[in-house]
Amino acid sequence: MVNESQHTCSASSSSRSDGGSSSGSESSKDNSRCSTPVLDADRHERLREKMRRRQEAGDKWFSLEFFPPRTANAAVNLISRFDRMGAGGPLFIDVTWHPAGDPGSDKETSSMIIANTAVNYCGLETILHMTCCNQTKDDITGHLQKAKRLGLKNIMALRGDPAGEEWEEEVDGFNYAVDLVKHIRNEFDDYFDICVAGYPKGHPEAESYEADLRHLREKVFAGADFIITQLFFRPETFLKFMKDCQAIGITCPIIPGIFPIQGYHSLRQLVKLSKLEVPQEIKDVIEPIKDNDAAIRNYGVELAVSMCRELLDSGMVHGLHFYTLNREVATTEVLKRLGIWKEDPRRPLPWAVSAHPKRRVEDVRPIFWASRPKSYIYRTQEWDDFPNGRWGNSSSPAFGELKDYYLFYLKSKSPREELLKMWGEELTGEESVFEVFTCYITGEPNRNGYKVTCMPWNDDPLATETNLLKDQLEKVNRRGILTINSQPNINGKPSADPIVGWGPSGGYVFQKAYLEFFTSSEIVTALLKVLKKYELRVNYHIVNVKGQNITNAPDLQPNAVTWGIFPGREIIQPTVVDPVSFLSWKDEAFALWIEQWAKLYEEESPSRMIIQYIHDNYYLVNLVDNDFPLENCLWQVVEDTFELLN
Amino acid sequence: MVNESQHTCSASSSSRSDGGSSSGSESSKDNSRCSTPVLDADRHERLREKMRRRQEAGDKWFSLEFFPPRTANAAVNLISRFDRMGAGGPLFIDVTWHPAGDPGSDKETSSMIIANTAVNYCGLETILHMTCCNQTKDDITGHLQKAKRLGLKNIMALRGDPAGEEWEEEVDGFNYAVDLVKHIRNEFDDYFDICVAGYPKGHPEAESYEADLRHLREKVFAGADFIITQLFFRPETFLKFMKDCQAIGITCPIIPGIFPIQGYHSLRQLVKLSKLEVPQEIKDVIEPIKDNDAAIRNYGVELAVSMCRELLDSGMVHGLHFYTLNREVATTEVLKRLGIWKEDPRRPLPWAVSAHPKRRVEDVRPIFWASRPKSYIYRTQEWDDFPNGRWGNSSSPAFGELKDYYLFYLKSKSPREELLKMWGEELTGEESVFEVFTCYITGEPNRNGYKVTCMPWNDDPLATETNLLKDQLEKVNRRGILTINSQPNINGKPSADPIVGWGPSGGYVFQKAYLEFFTSSEIVTALLKVLKKYELRVNYHIVNVKGQNITNAPDLQPNAVTWGIFPGREIIQPTVVDPVSFLSWKDEAFALWIEQWAKLYEEESPSRMIIQYIHDNYYLVNLVDNDFPLENCLWQVVEDTFELLN
Repeated sequence: MVNESQHTCSASSSSRSDGGSSSGSESSKDNSRCSTPVLDADRHERLREKMRRRQEAGDKWFSLEFFPPRTANAAVNLISRFDRMGAGGPLFIDVTWHPAGDPGSDKETSSMIIANTAVNYCGLETILHMTCCNQTKDDITGHLQKAKRLGLKNIMALRGDPAGEEWEEEVDGFNYAVDLVKHIRNEFDDYFDICVAGYPKGHPEAESYEADLRHLREKVFAGADFIITQLFFRPETFLKFMKDCQAIGITCPIIPGIFPIQGYHSLRQLVKLSKLEVPQEIKDVIEPIKDNDAAIRNYGVELAVSMCRELLDSGMVHGLHFYTLNREVATTEVLKRLGIWKEDPRRPLPWAVSAHPKRRVEDVRPIFWASRPKSYIYRTQEWDDFPNGRWGNSSSPAFGELKDYYLFYLKSKSPREELLKMWGEELTGEESVFEVFTCYITGEPNRNGYKVTCMPWNDDPLATETNLLKDQLEKVNRRGILTINSQPNINGKPSADPIVGWGPSGGYVFQKAYLEFFTSSEIVTALLKVLKKYELRVNYHIVNVKGQNITNAPDLQPNAVTWGIFPGREIIQPTVVDPVSFLSWKDEAFALWIEQWAKLYEEESPSRMIIQYIHDNYYLVNLVDNDFPLENCLWQVVEDTFELLN
Repeated sequence: MVNESQHTCSASSSSRSDGGSSSGSESSKDNSRCSTPVLDADRHERLREKMRRRQEAGDKWFSLEFFPPRTANAAVNLISRFDRMGAGGPLFIDVTWHPAGDPGSDKETSSMIIANTAVNYCGLETILHMTCCNQTKDDITGHLQKAKRLGLKNIMALRGDPAGEEWEEEVDGFNYAVDLVKHIRNEFDDYFDICVAGYPKGHPEAESYEADLRHLREKVFAGADFIITQLFFRPETFLKFMKDCQAIGITCPIIPGIFPIQGYHSLRQLVKLSKLEVPQEIKDVIEPIKDNDAAIRNYGVELAVSMCRELLDSGMVHGLHFYTLNREVATTEVLKRLGIWKEDPRRPLPWAVSAHPKRRVEDVRPIFWASRPKSYIYRTQEWDDFPNGRWGNSSSPAFGELKDYYLFYLKSKSPREELLKMWGEELTGEESVFEVFTCYITGEPNRNGYKVTCMPWNDDPLATETNLLKDQLEKVNRRGILTINSQPNINGKPSADPIVGWGPSGGYVFQKAYLEFFTSSEIVTALLKVLKKYELRVNYHIVNVKGQNITNAPDLQPNAVTWGIFPGREIIQPTVVDPVSFLSWKDEAFALWIEQWAKLYEEESPSRMIIQYIHDNYYLVNLVDNDFPLENCLWQVVEDTFELLN
């Protein structure tokens, strides 16, 4: 009977059976247990394991290739594109290596820094390309060490284009990608997942197709985990290649590289570089419409969709790799039509999780950086441990300084002229600042007819969740309670709720109402009188730029304001209001007035002086209503304050 | 205006104002912040600070003195008395040092071990007495080191009675209590809080009252933190003494020692030992009633109450120290009549907190030991860290073995004969075991007319909270679901709720329904089929004595089953169902069948074989209903199981 019931159980995939008779053997498993409850196991898995798991589950997936841009502004745009295209659920992205562009440097346009940003700031599983020819062993080891330090876990090992015609093999040098694969395995053991390139038509420089296949096998046997192919134009090209690979013993995943044709010129350039031939049937379509970009792109999308369908239908292909050329429209269109673009509304946590391995246990953050998560990641990048479960136990409370407000991934996406249109070419008083805040909340155009789509504290339009509070927010901003962060109270909504839900299914999520704003000292005086009436219910922190700080937080303890209860898990409390880190946030929040807003205007101009006055004299206030099951009392607090002032 | 609002604020005791302009100075406070939210600050404070705080708040308090008992059985009873009298809220208890009784040894009746039990297992702030005369420096240092290791933080430094008449001062020896005070401060710096004895009538061996006061001052100046006095019979004796102390510069707290007269003989003996004289007015009352114990005790209570009232009313006395003589009734009566016996229904956590400094951050435990907290403390005593905030991060998962089931503080309070009456002199089959469980639940007498007031897994009658589930529990126990632990689901009751509340006021507490029971393999087979229907809702662990283990816990993660949300705090989740520690608990739970029950019967007797059969063949099952806002489905699960069996 014992065995029978055990069998019943171990057959079910969700159950765990263990026949060991000693509890000691169980205890030893304790170290491996996952203490951070997440939506899926992705965060802890290696890329090759994710691939295997997706294949086993029969899930089709895609990945996206980007190249590093030339200018800092283009880099800012590319990072936004990462965020947008990341929403579709790529299994990974990869960033190419541009030997001419100082790819391993700290420049904001280097391959290394773009990949770093993708991993750490956009939370994307990322492969960094790396080429080896014409480089010393030390250079390469240095690049790999840096990549590891930055949290990169996957390398695409390539030979790269030899410089000049007279290239000759160097003895003991890096002559082929296989040398780089061996080097990575020698120096870094199994740390990196390694990808190598496959050529469905054979490498243009290979003696033969067969010889090239043997080279590919060499790369795999040297330690590569999977293969991404060069682009091709006909599905049968890939399917034959894959069978040929398997025939000579290559068993790792082979991912077809898909190139949606997006324009006549980009096609011609790519074909030239890759020494591929465009099939006649494609030329026949394209040549007549070569000056009609839209027509070519439509055709490219059609062609890609039909090729991808054929590949997926073959049963041999589980994932598709897209050469995006850093463009969004065509690839997204193809993915959506294939039905593998999946904007998963389920979030493991209310905020986006970083993909750096050091941060994988992180599951609690202060609410203050909710709209500036990249700044939070930047300012905590030197931490060795991340708070897990409880913020108050954190041993790393020191926030890095944010001196360079033009750090490229923190830069506003909008240029100065646009910001001036939104926030006012000329301010006439504090009231004109109130108006900007109000227009941002309402979405209505300002007096000059421009919509305010971002603020110094928030580079994006109002969050869906904040929309729930829109009417009240509008009312208070008009009167000088300049809100920069807020959340409604939530008393046990399902974790699958499309707006406020997060975490594993079958759970319940909760929030305490939160309101954060700048306001004048006059209003603060009245507010403090009103808050006495709410002493047991409302926690507050009120601070000015000089650090004068008024709070009723007991013992400087953090206050959990978002939490979730899930089946079979510990409680998760991903967001806290923490009195200690609030003082670091205060510095940043006040500085943004000057760095992002005041500096739009001439020195000594009245507009600049108005912002400077607010910066110097206003208070930053946060309020938490602890009584989450009751109706949010914070609006009443503000109402009472205005009444007291009248 | 800034200063004004600050002023407004710093004047309020509950608010915190800080004029510092740098956030750095704030960050440095981070280390001092309390990460474990508790009901009061007591857990983190030194005894002398607690005293000061209570005095400042105008709270009157009391403390209780006990002596180590002579036998192990008496020790078991004394420990229960600690638990009961601890409920009244003493600021501390103290345990006297019996030089003749090997007071520093590991014997269960030694002063050291009794004090250790009070601190670690009863969670009481405790002072250990220590005498110094006729002891070597090494002996004393050894005792102090041991006390520190066991978590004791307070010492009452005494001279002790010199052995024999011919006692002479030793050069460099410990001749007086002051030598011991100096030694503690030399060797242990400020680690211990030190108490010394004061003699309101002067020490009987002192040259004079004045000389004795000067000795007392010496002890205080050498580093004593407070004074407890010898007993006295008239309030004016104490008040004069206190004024005389203050007049010569003694400013530390002086706590009057109160001796409620409890009987003629004990009074005579004490008077003889302490060389005190009983005032004539007391003798006049007592002599005529000396053979009437009740009358003497009533008089003693009256006398003590009136003396205590006078002391408290003087405004000079904030705490009262009671010489209990290890008895409960008289002291409790005095305390209740004075109104300072305070059974505080508010609990910082759902389980009693240990007073060992190592455990002060502990705020999460597995639910399994809920009825055997002393066993849990024993089995985790070697841990260096205690889980705080989240169980899954615990780095100390190894539970100590519980081999000695007769460890005195884990012993049943009931003798064998009584247990046999409750659990059956003779068992006739599994059904007679079901009956015992059922009688324990219902509180009805068993077939022989005896109430079942304890079980091997639970030494106390059913908890109030479990009473809520009584009807359902009765039903399932009758049919062989032998419950040993359970809790109802709770969806956000106020933290002040008299039955299920705990934690700081203004919060909300929650529970997931939990049920733990032994049952036959036949029922387990049916149960597992039923559980498939509840796969997403109910987590289960099913294990037999051999360790065959069936569970659907995801990744061996703990499941939080009790948690609380409080104003200005992080979430607390004091109770978890942890799959890893369940296997340690399983060993203990199964062993209790044999150690506590089977061994009541002769070897090879049918009764013993029945228990042995259950031990060998039954499963231990726990079930959690994750859907805490809905009606508890666990009864339905059990119902469905019985239906399937029919």
